[in-house]
Amino acid sequence: MTRNVFSLKLRFVCTALAVFTLSIFAKGPDEGMWTFDNPPVKQLQKRYHFTPTPDWLEHVRLSAVRFNDGGSGSFVSPNGLVMTNHHVGVGQIQKLSTPERDLVTSGFYAQKPEEELKCPDLELNVLVEMINVTEQVLAAVEPGMSDEEALKARQAKIAKIEKQSQDKTGLRSDVVDLYHGGEYWLYRYQKYTDVRLVFAPERQAAYFGGDLDNFTYPRYDLDVAFFRVYEDGKPLKTDHYFEWKRNGAEENELVFVVGNPGSTNRLYTHAQLEYERDYWYPLLLKYIDGRMAILKEYAQQGPEQERQALIQMFGLGNAKKALTGEYQGLLDEKVMKLHKEQEAAFLAKLAENPELQKEYAPAWKTIEDIYNRYAQEMMARFYRGARGSKLLNFALQLVRYTEEIEKPDQDRLEGYHDSQLESRKFYLLSKAPIYKELEKANFAGTLQMAIEAIGADDPFLKTVLDGKSPREVASSLIDKTRLDDPEVRKTLLEGGKKAVEASDDPLINLARKIDPILRKNRQWYKENIESVKAAASEKIARARFAVYGKSTYPDATFTLRLSYGAVKGYAMNGTEAPYKTTLYGLYDRSLSFDKKGDFALPQRFWERQKNLDLSTPVNFVNTTDIIGGNSGSPVIDKDARIVGLIFDGNIESLVGRFIYNEAKNRAVAVHSAYIIEALQKLYDAQALAEEILGAGRHAAE
Amino acid sequence: MTRNVFSLKLRFVCTALAVFTLSIFAKGPDEGMWTFDNPPVKQLQKRYHFTPTPDWLEHVRLSAVRFNDGGSGSFVSPNGLVMTNHHVGVGQIQKLSTPERDLVTSGFYAQKPEEELKCPDLELNVLVEMINVTEQVLAAVEPGMSDEEALKARQAKIAKIEKQSQDKTGLRSDVVDLYHGGEYWLYRYQKYTDVRLVFAPERQAAYFGGDLDNFTYPRYDLDVAFFRVYEDGKPLKTDHYFEWKRNGAEENELVFVVGNPGSTNRLYTHAQLEYERDYWYPLLLKYIDGRMAILKEYAQQGPEQERQALIQMFGLGNAKKALTGEYQGLLDEKVMKLHKEQEAAFLAKLAENPELQKEYAPAWKTIEDIYNRYAQEMMARFYRGARGSKLLNFALQLVRYTEEIEKPDQDRLEGYHDSQLESRKFYLLSKAPIYKELEKANFAGTLQMAIEAIGADDPFLKTVLDGKSPREVASSLIDKTRLDDPEVRKTLLEGGKKAVEASDDPLINLARKIDPILRKNRQWYKENIESVKAAASEKIARARFAVYGKSTYPDATFTLRLSYGAVKGYAMNGTEAPYKTTLYGLYDRSLSFDKKGDFALPQRFWERQKNLDLSTPVNFVNTTDIIGGNSGSPVIDKDARIVGLIFDGNIESLVGRFIYNEAKNRAVAVHSAYIIEALQKLYDAQALAEEILGAGRHAAE
Repeated sequence: MTRNVFSLKLRFVCTALAVFTLSIFAKGPDEGMWTFDNPPVKQLQKRYHFTPTPDWLEHVRLSAVRFNDGGSGSFVSPNGLVMTNHHVGVGQIQKLSTPERDLVTSGFYAQKPEEELKCPDLELNVLVEMINVTEQVLAAVEPGMSDEEALKARQAKIAKIEKQSQDKTGLRSDVVDLYHGGEYWLYRYQKYTDVRLVFAPERQAAYFGGDLDNFTYPRYDLDVAFFRVYEDGKPLKTDHYFEWKRNGAEENELVFVVGNPGSTNRLYTHAQLEYERDYWYPLLLKYIDGRMAILKEYAQQGPEQERQALIQMFGLGNAKKALTGEYQGLLDEKVMKLHKEQEAAFLAKLAENPELQKEYAPAWKTIEDIYNRYAQEMMARFYRGARGSKLLNFALQLVRYTEEIEKPDQDRLEGYHDSQLESRKFYLLSKAPIYKELEKANFAGTLQMAIEAIGADDPFLKTVLDGKSPREVASSLIDKTRLDDPEVRKTLLEGGKKAVEASDDPLINLARKIDPILRKNRQWYKENIESVKAAASEKIARARFAVYGKSTYPDATFTLRLSYGAVKGYAMNGTEAPYKTTLYGLYDRSLSFDKKGDFALPQRFWERQKNLDLSTPVNFVNTTDIIGGNSGSPVIDKDARIVGLIFDGNIESLVGRFIYNEAKNRAVAVHSAYIIEALQKLYDAQALAEEILGAGRHAAE
Repeated sequence: MTRNVFSLKLRFVCTALAVFTLSIFAKGPDEGMWTFDNPPVKQLQKRYHFTPTPDWLEHVRLSAVRFNDGGSGSFVSPNGLVMTNHHVGVGQIQKLSTPERDLVTSGFYAQKPEEELKCPDLELNVLVEMINVTEQVLAAVEPGMSDEEALKARQAKIAKIEKQSQDKTGLRSDVVDLYHGGEYWLYRYQKYTDVRLVFAPERQAAYFGGDLDNFTYPRYDLDVAFFRVYEDGKPLKTDHYFEWKRNGAEENELVFVVGNPGSTNRLYTHAQLEYERDYWYPLLLKYIDGRMAILKEYAQQGPEQERQALIQMFGLGNAKKALTGEYQGLLDEKVMKLHKEQEAAFLAKLAENPELQKEYAPAWKTIEDIYNRYAQEMMARFYRGARGSKLLNFALQLVRYTEEIEKPDQDRLEGYHDSQLESRKFYLLSKAPIYKELEKANFAGTLQMAIEAIGADDPFLKTVLDGKSPREVASSLIDKTRLDDPEVRKTLLEGGKKAVEASDDPLINLARKIDPILRKNRQWYKENIESVKAAASEKIARARFAVYGKSTYPDATFTLRLSYGAVKGYAMNGTEAPYKTTLYGLYDRSLSFDKKGDFALPQRFWERQKNLDLSTPVNFVNTTDIIGGNSGSPVIDKDARIVGLIFDGNIESLVGRFIYNEAKNRAVAVHSAYIIEALQKLYDAQALAEEILGAGRHAAE
């Protein structure tokens, strides 16, 4: 009930964020993005009387899939069928589209296996093994090393562990830094790169309500897409996949989300939060506005330009809304005050032990100092780089790739270690289409923004511009480059340093010129910021373990996590948001806006309305703790059956980057019933629905 | 678009109330509850290119109806048919109900005129004439009079004007104080007391979403009831009524609301606002909680008790939500800061003219002083009185009535002047049922609250309790009194002072004992607070006219006002609230809550769903400036046709008691199309629908 929010005891508080009562460190009941080595067993037993068994955890982990370009997914049939969000797959769907056949607009369904479309550059990962390598990594640091030497030693060790693991197992091997240097884990992934599109609805159905409704609830979105993993040209056979529960979860039922939350800053020091608030967010939001303006101007040239720009605009719009919500959280004095108090409590506890205090407490000051210093530099550093142009990025990576692989592994730039080369090549050789006119607009526009921000006399910009205007530079370089042809990139990659040095491609030339400047920048950052911060953060992590033990979860790192919670509405707008929505509500919202803009529905929704059971649940909310990267995560019940598909958080959840508030923080999911209802009655995708429901499995429910 | 709310320039602001940019004095574009002598012609011309003619204004005014117990309505046929909200008429509907035939739950429709049910004590008013009597009233005050003498002289003059007008015209005649003493107007009303119930839906349809959805939007309520005015036993024939526009208003269309906003405090000084925040609202909200608890306990005894208590609970719940919203506004530092700044700007303008400054500026200090003084007294004064018991109120009024009418008019207590006697009698002689057990519970419970608040030693409470417990007092008094019989009250009223003095009714006895205490209280208030405040407020009103002219509207006084605005959605919850909702949404919201509690719909809504056009608009919002008392007001287009029926404001509008914010303040109305769709397809009320649509009038639209 809303009454609590308006409690008479709450003085001088705004209603919007009035209910923060949870400590960052003393965890809220449903809080946490837990690693699979440290699942929240006690919390689950206490609050939900459920104990996840090792088998349960393993099955869930192996049924989950990471979409490497920034999302999550899951196996939903024994034949390699993978479910994710439309908005996670849309990059691939656009790359599979042509001006004549725009699958983003029209949707897609492969009636037969042979109609499934192979994605140009999609990599999926399944986390098959986790090994704690903290001791090994930390052992690489020898007494007397400077922070910079220590960082380098750790990175070299990590690269070595990754390479050895990869050589030994053939699996993608990533060492993951958890708790900001508190732990290091070797994660081994089964990697899949033959992934094919099976089904996608029209974007009007997937993103019904568009940017306006994005990050809000009640919602009515069919934000789902299905892909299939192939191995040796055949659909993957897998024992681990989630079964389907057609009628979803009840109100208040325990549910889990398994996926890859991208990044949270809940363990930041207060000085870091202030830096984010005063420097990073204002810069980033301004940059996004600038990029949006470039794309809007480009899209206005015509429908094909609009199609080309759409996905980037969608991504930027999404980012802007999310970042704005996060920024509002930072601007909220109550949020900041609470964070400050919790940090003070942590430091007070630390001070109870003088030895710990002496060893760890100075780290907070160190963090504050380096951020104060970096604040003066960050704007210039942000605008130096191959921002805006994908082709210039290709060029820079080709120059670096060919140069770096000639060095011993431990001396290479981050991102070019042996263990990282395969994924990098996969990206560099992608056959996804490149739109040269869009490239020009982005490149020229971003250069213009950089000039306005840091002045044309900046050595980086001077080199790029060479006395010309951004538009002249972009036009001549993009017109003349041949790097848009993947074969050209392949030839250079395979030709190595010699081939790249011999190349007269204008972008390769430019990349060669700017690379030393960018490396110098990077070196400065590493010496003065990154290595110092890493050492200090590691100290704070150890202090946290010393004070709180491992009762906590690490900040999100785009690695597999388990979240739990209940299906539950929340106080909103003076009333309550219901735990679910129905198809009636979809039609209501469309008609409430007279079917305008993003509230238009695909024609089939009107033509086939009479076939539908309008009481079918469409979306629902739950208290699980998620963030960007969790998009496409399955929502499962305690029998590990799919009851929904995460696709968003409500507007109140955006502050969750810094702090979790169970009273209002909600994950938003597509209901399992809607997916089946839509496949069967709107899209004539009977075969797909049957594959999901499984022969004789839970189809009757 | 929500973007504006999240503007990067807005630092340290909460989103909930971030967009106050409108001055109180420099009016917002759609702001204002305008009197009919001073309509916002310039604003309408400038913003909407519409000029209301004198004929238009007269027709609108004479088609509007005031529900004297606190609401608004309008004539919607030439045969005296009056439309209002169900929640305005529900008091009468309950009084017409019996345990066997609960019209609140079941709804009601009179198929034929002879089935229409006569309301026991409903008085309707139509404003037929307005005369400026400011000069006359102010002339009553002679030089050298004290504040108290001046107040008394004004009140006597007002009573005289009212009486003379009533004698001369036979019309109800009220002198209305506008701009807190800036102007006095004689309002003459045609009064109707033979009013009969024609149609009411079930309360589940009228208040769908209940207390939870109250004061929120999107909404889906059929909050309508129809009554008919009779004169000489026949339906009233009237030339002035609103025609019906079945398809309502378009998005962004200009609409008007004509009705009787109850009370606003927009012209209060900052000291008054602080008093409201620190003393009045906390007291009132606590009192409401106490009363609610009493009623809840009573209702739990059984279904009949629940039926008896329902309307009071509904009223208190409604008040609580509204007051809480207003209180939140006062607690919002930004609202208070803005108000303070605007007051400072007013004072600065005043200071530009030293003469004005000298004359008027001290009034602000005077107001501050009396509120500081009153703050110490108000709790005791609040709890002294016949609170909680309707029967004790009858007794007190009978004692006073019979005593006062023996005095010359100008010497009487306020409320007992000749001009006020008829309405007072109508109330005292009402045949509406009285539930003695409910009376006991209310009386005893309120006494207990009073003891807790001000102590049993308070002279008033001592007199009432006379050494007994609240429960004993209430039981014995209510059991023995015969004042629940309207005939007994009539006999006493007609028998005059002698009959009352001779009465041995225990409540009359008690009323005789407490009357002197209450009169003393009242006298203290009049001398020390009311008269001083009146003089100071009048000065501030004159200062306002001197500085701003009559470009402004007076605070609401439950007299007829004209508001204008556009049909328009608004930024809400990170997205947009649509300008209208549809029947699809009604079913969605019911099913979203699994049809539980106040989200259950009457069975006919499910049985007859197939008959309905689900795209029919249900409710809509507009920017007109309204407040409690406007309930039941017609929403009309510029051709004075009904497009909707006001029944609520959104949660963001509650702060409108103090400040109007066009960005988010919305009036919520039932759509004209929903009323017809419901009458025709859900309630088989064809005849009523046809009467409303009119033969050959706008039925085809």
